[in-house]
Amino acid sequence: MNSFTHVPPGFRFHPTDEELVDYYLRKKIASKRIDLDVIKDIDLQNRAMGSSRIGAEEQNEWYFFSHKDKKYPTGTRTNRATKAGFWKATGRDKAIYLKHSLIGMRKTLVFYQGRAPNGQKSDWIMHEYRLETNENAPSQASISP
Amino acid sequence: MNSFTHVPPGFRFHPTDEELVDYYLRKKIASKRIDLDVIKDIDLQNRAMGSSRIGAEEQNEWYFFSHKDKKYPTGTRTNRATKAGFWKATGRDKAIYLKHSLIGMRKTLVFYQGRAPNGQKSDWIMHEYRLETNENAPSQASISP
Repeated sequence: MNSFTHVPPGFRFHPTDEELVDYYLRKKIASKRIDLDVIKDIDLQNRAMGSSRIGAEEQNEWYFFSHKDKKYPTGTRTNRATKAGFWKATGRDKAIYLKHSLIGMRKTLVFYQGRAPNGQKSDWIMHEYRLETNENAPSQASISP
Repeated sequence: MNSFTHVPPGFRFHPTDEELVDYYLRKKIASKRIDLDVIKDIDLQNRAMGSSRIGAEEQNEWYFFSHKDKKYPTGTRTNRATKAGFWKATGRDKAIYLKHSLIGMRKTLVFYQGRAPNGQKSDWIMHEYRLETNENAPSQASISP
């Protein structure tokens, strides 16, 4: 296995849902080393929206890994509020299969500026991936406007 | 510099025109080693259309490097006939710039089955790249349906 610090010119990070869950999310949860660190660990609650760089290019799509924050210490609901607004789920979760076995789920969320139940809908979309084996597992998400 | 035999999961080869000309075509012409051999050397005249694989995926876009074949030994016209048909230029060549300097040109061609001036137009498109510094330099092309 090579140790990557970059990829050759012309390669772009456009992972499929299967690759994100089966390779990247599994490694992140297991705290295993990932050759090329394309998925940063962040604290979603304290993070403002913005674009990020992979290599020399400006991107408006962003991949990161974050631990879920509980809304109430004893509950199961997830806190998706941030300083500037909140993330609200939209549509149905999508099942992610690898060779016909369910390996994970993808939740789609929209960012609203302000505080629930008010707040102004933005163009930011987040896909939150989770392993199907453990509902309370940490999640990995991609954001794009 | 690492020696690549593969890229990490999730990376796809989607080069820009600038990367194809300034990195890959320059290296090919100079016979320099390219870390990951994504651009095969082929003989365009004897090649049938088809899909190729990069990694585990079936692609319908294909990158290769080929030397130009002269139509007549003493002339400058290029022979783009193959056993099954011929490539015919369409539209105008596009100039490729890097930081405002012209580095190459991109010619778009369509594949026709049969023999000129007859032949049946296909869905195959080829972009033929050349360095601007030398009109007779070998060319590199990408084919997609």
